[in-house]
Amino acid sequence: MQFHHHGYVSGDPRVQPAAGVGLDRPEELPDEVDVLVIGTGPAGMIAAAQLSQFPGISTRIVERRPGRLVIGQADGIQARSVETFQAFGFAHRIIDEAYRIVEMAFWKPDPQDSSRIVRTARPDDDPTGISEFPHLIVNQARVLDYFAEFMKNAPTRMEPDYGFEFAGLTVDDEHEYPVSVTLVRTAGERQGAERTVRAKYVVGADGARSKVRQAIGCTLAGDQANHAWGVMDAVAVTDFPDIRRKCAIQSGAGGSILLIPREGGHLFRMYVDLGKVDPEDNGAVRSTTVEQIIAKANQILSPYTLDVRNVAWHSVYEVGHRLTDRFDDVLPEQMGERTPRVFITGDACHTHSAKAGQGMNVSMQDGFNLGWKLGHVLEGRSPESLLATYSAERQVVAKDLIAFDREWSTLMAKKPEEFADPSELEDFYVQTAEFPAGFRTQYAPSVLIAEPTHQDLAGGFPIGKRFKSAPVVRVCDGVPMHLGHHATADGRWRIYVFADRAEAGTASGVADLAAWLGGTADSPLAATPRGADRDAWFDVKVIYQQAHTRVDIGQVPREFRPAVGPFGLTDYEKVYAADPAADIFDLRGIDRTGAVVVVRPDQYVAHVLPLADTAGLARFFAPLLRSRSERDSARALA
Amino acid sequence: MQFHHHGYVSGDPRVQPAAGVGLDRPEELPDEVDVLVIGTGPAGMIAAAQLSQFPGISTRIVERRPGRLVIGQADGIQARSVETFQAFGFAHRIIDEAYRIVEMAFWKPDPQDSSRIVRTARPDDDPTGISEFPHLIVNQARVLDYFAEFMKNAPTRMEPDYGFEFAGLTVDDEHEYPVSVTLVRTAGERQGAERTVRAKYVVGADGARSKVRQAIGCTLAGDQANHAWGVMDAVAVTDFPDIRRKCAIQSGAGGSILLIPREGGHLFRMYVDLGKVDPEDNGAVRSTTVEQIIAKANQILSPYTLDVRNVAWHSVYEVGHRLTDRFDDVLPEQMGERTPRVFITGDACHTHSAKAGQGMNVSMQDGFNLGWKLGHVLEGRSPESLLATYSAERQVVAKDLIAFDREWSTLMAKKPEEFADPSELEDFYVQTAEFPAGFRTQYAPSVLIAEPTHQDLAGGFPIGKRFKSAPVVRVCDGVPMHLGHHATADGRWRIYVFADRAEAGTASGVADLAAWLGGTADSPLAATPRGADRDAWFDVKVIYQQAHTRVDIGQVPREFRPAVGPFGLTDYEKVYAADPAADIFDLRGIDRTGAVVVVRPDQYVAHVLPLADTAGLARFFAPLLRSRSERDSARALA
Repeated sequence: MQFHHHGYVSGDPRVQPAAGVGLDRPEELPDEVDVLVIGTGPAGMIAAAQLSQFPGISTRIVERRPGRLVIGQADGIQARSVETFQAFGFAHRIIDEAYRIVEMAFWKPDPQDSSRIVRTARPDDDPTGISEFPHLIVNQARVLDYFAEFMKNAPTRMEPDYGFEFAGLTVDDEHEYPVSVTLVRTAGERQGAERTVRAKYVVGADGARSKVRQAIGCTLAGDQANHAWGVMDAVAVTDFPDIRRKCAIQSGAGGSILLIPREGGHLFRMYVDLGKVDPEDNGAVRSTTVEQIIAKANQILSPYTLDVRNVAWHSVYEVGHRLTDRFDDVLPEQMGERTPRVFITGDACHTHSAKAGQGMNVSMQDGFNLGWKLGHVLEGRSPESLLATYSAERQVVAKDLIAFDREWSTLMAKKPEEFADPSELEDFYVQTAEFPAGFRTQYAPSVLIAEPTHQDLAGGFPIGKRFKSAPVVRVCDGVPMHLGHHATADGRWRIYVFADRAEAGTASGVADLAAWLGGTADSPLAATPRGADRDAWFDVKVIYQQAHTRVDIGQVPREFRPAVGPFGLTDYEKVYAADPAADIFDLRGIDRTGAVVVVRPDQYVAHVLPLADTAGLARFFAPLLRSRSERDSARALA
Repeated sequence: MQFHHHGYVSGDPRVQPAAGVGLDRPEELPDEVDVLVIGTGPAGMIAAAQLSQFPGISTRIVERRPGRLVIGQADGIQARSVETFQAFGFAHRIIDEAYRIVEMAFWKPDPQDSSRIVRTARPDDDPTGISEFPHLIVNQARVLDYFAEFMKNAPTRMEPDYGFEFAGLTVDDEHEYPVSVTLVRTAGERQGAERTVRAKYVVGADGARSKVRQAIGCTLAGDQANHAWGVMDAVAVTDFPDIRRKCAIQSGAGGSILLIPREGGHLFRMYVDLGKVDPEDNGAVRSTTVEQIIAKANQILSPYTLDVRNVAWHSVYEVGHRLTDRFDDVLPEQMGERTPRVFITGDACHTHSAKAGQGMNVSMQDGFNLGWKLGHVLEGRSPESLLATYSAERQVVAKDLIAFDREWSTLMAKKPEEFADPSELEDFYVQTAEFPAGFRTQYAPSVLIAEPTHQDLAGGFPIGKRFKSAPVVRVCDGVPMHLGHHATADGRWRIYVFADRAEAGTASGVADLAAWLGGTADSPLAATPRGADRDAWFDVKVIYQQAHTRVDIGQVPREFRPAVGPFGLTDYEKVYAADPAADIFDLRGIDRTGAVVVVRPDQYVAHVLPLADTAGLARFFAPLLRSRSERDSARALA
């Protein structure tokens, strides 16, 4: 955490100085905004939180409810999401209060007596160490609280506008604020009153029954629900020994349970199999009572008993898997001719079973993917064409998710005798660990993702996948740390320069690259606005191969020690050394001749290049950046 | 973190349900309180924060300033203090924002050219891994903020009462509220008005010029100041390569610097040697300007230069080492005849140089030591005699501190040519690492600290020293964790039962001990109030030698799985297993026949016993606990 360089900070350094639109943010929802986000679920909140870091952009996020969410249904937090929370500054806090999944138990009918269940396996949740962050379970409401705190502390001082329901929108591409949105007040004195808000962009994060989706003519398509589950968040007294462990339980009597312990040491969530639903059922299964769910749970758990003492929430749902074919308002025939103005995210685009703990996580990555792109386009850093990549990238991920979830929920609903191999369920769980952890996403080559021509220079940073952090030592103070944990959600591109063998201060590929980055018009850094800190748009870090005691910080090129803030102080926190106890060059397969690893603001690896390939670096950024002069003329026209 | 067992918690689980005096806490300072704390420095705040956990006790903390501290002078946070912050729930958050010391550099005159300094050593700050927590630097104001948040979230909903200055007190042992305190308002409409508040106990945490100390007739005694230092918190541009590393710098030109980097990546504190002070100086040295301090710093740092861009705070002080001979209002001749009513803590008892980074840390341990004792006596758990241990224990620690600091600050002020051995300073630093880390304290045997008769059963938990945490695995969910990190500042005694070789469910020393703990009148647990949770006063945990997968939680004695809260839910978080990757039995030298380790609410080891020595356990607690019947008759009398 860096502060004091703009003047002494006495209070919480997480509260950033107010700036731009945050200096006089109107309390009432204004008539015109840059971005209007509909819905304060995980997808909407992360998009808004990301945009809250852009002081020049006015973003508002509206919500139908009159206030904060009290009980959320989502609770699974993949390691990938915790990595993301680290970027938003609340990973440690949420870890402290969440339940942590380290292993999963599988229970099956006892072969000797199929009326009894027995534990048959207890595999680790993350046997391969896929992330240094844990897999958590915590109420979605808390995730939203933390995003709300982050945006409130941001330069723009954002807060959700509660009590507004989305009613409709029209798009007029010629208007300065092309999207006209109709909202209806749901609370307060003027309940029922309509409001029109014009926005440059609209993000529909309004859930599975999204009206924004409807307004842009998208539909969810997919299979019918045909299997019902009762779900409850409860506390109980039980002799079932794995009540605090994630379990898949299959009974001989028929039916299965997915048990997810919850935060706080007592609460658990239980998905109880209510069996196949007759197509003629007409929703009758939904009237299953909580008592019936509890009775069924006791039947499945036999010989153990579950004495439920309190139910915080329960529901009955039928599993369906549905997806839209596009995540924005650009029709197939308009592709390449117009850029999107309205986006949909999260459950508005994809719905599926809750049992793989995927929904909130994939939704947040939707919002994270979109947030910075809107920021860069609205700030004039990037051309509008950048926005087309959102739907292109995320629709594929959602498709993948739905295929995975279909397989997992089908397996979960199978009867024991239907399995070809008795360990099929746990084998699937172990083999696909990367997916539920949130790390299978690999974006295909595009304007934002380079071809993997030089992938061999950094095999451990696959292009298109998220940047997998590794330990390093900070040179200025010798502190061991995780390189990736300093990638905060500030909307900046990151250029990690992994040095060649030469020491700092000698002629080297690093020195040449630094000279090019700092001194040429082709360099992406040349686009940085006049007057802004040198690292305002690009966070350029160097990692030396030598131990930190052998790096003379005074000899490190200036480009890695930029002057920042009104006092022109030196930023010392961009110079790292390999940790001899866990060498990042070995851990991530980085060539000893060095490599440049380019990472997007949403933490995905965009490019890997040799140190000397400055032309390649310039070529990669050219379509993503509007130069100073382009921006100047655009401003002059406006 | 455990919650939901009293009903579903939707918001921040750190906010505990209001209870007792917190249900209708008066906003205005009342006329009568159980405890009145004077001063919101580190010692006062931690004492108040500890007391905030006792719902039945009314505590108020008054402060002369009209509001929160803005710039604090203390900044060094020992690992022992971070351990303590863990108990108050904010270790991770303060680590995230603090500067972390991992090594220290020593600079000396270049033997070839004494006008230049050169780096001669760079030892690790904690070469022996004395704690799993780091050594930090962070503004004292932030430490106070976190304590304030903790007490606000506590059942008692405590907040400091700003704008009251202590003017005097009288003690009348016969009165129900024996201490009558006169306060003067320092702010607001009624500025200058006097208030009288009666208290059962008063804690003077009012700093080096303590008026509470004066009121109880204590005086600081010690050596004269004879060496002056200029100190500043500043940001600068410099070519000195260790500006982000803690340094002791001795120049040939004369004079030395102690450099402490500060949180946020830019600020640093510099103690600049202003030389010996003539006894006839009459304080003239205090008029040294910040420009003169900067000039002197540049002289010492030569050939490097320091271009100071902003100074947040500066001062000049002369080193003195002073101590009071008692920390309460019991005169030597009254010892054993009356128990204390007024206590002093922190700088009110001991003053010394700032340069060993000790003051705030030792002060917090003063307050932590006192807080729970007041709580136990006021709740009627313990007899008043317990309070005599505060002065007895902490005065010795302060004496030790002052001896250490005198040695360190004398070394720091020495000229290079005065050292017998050129590495004397760094050798002292390395050899005494335990002291500045905060772990040298070892309380002597007393009513609270048993004789080390059975110390050999758990050599790694020395009686009288703080409980040094080690890794374990929680049985119910397989989560690896640090055993000591669950010792929250809830005022409870902890009894760690390290099992013998037998597995759970078989006849064993553990089973016998559990039966005794739960079923006999001699057991300390028998003192637990009727109607309270079984673990309300004693947190009893068991650690098995087997891997967690080999412990059947259903077979663990009920005493380690108590029913808690209104729903009578099972607490599963008291049953642990050794971590095969780091076996606590090996790490802490615990005998394989098992051992009982008793730990005080302030985290110091009080006793080590064999599993079978229930008589010894009963004997230890007897003088510390008033039985239910004693308490009943005391209540009947009152």
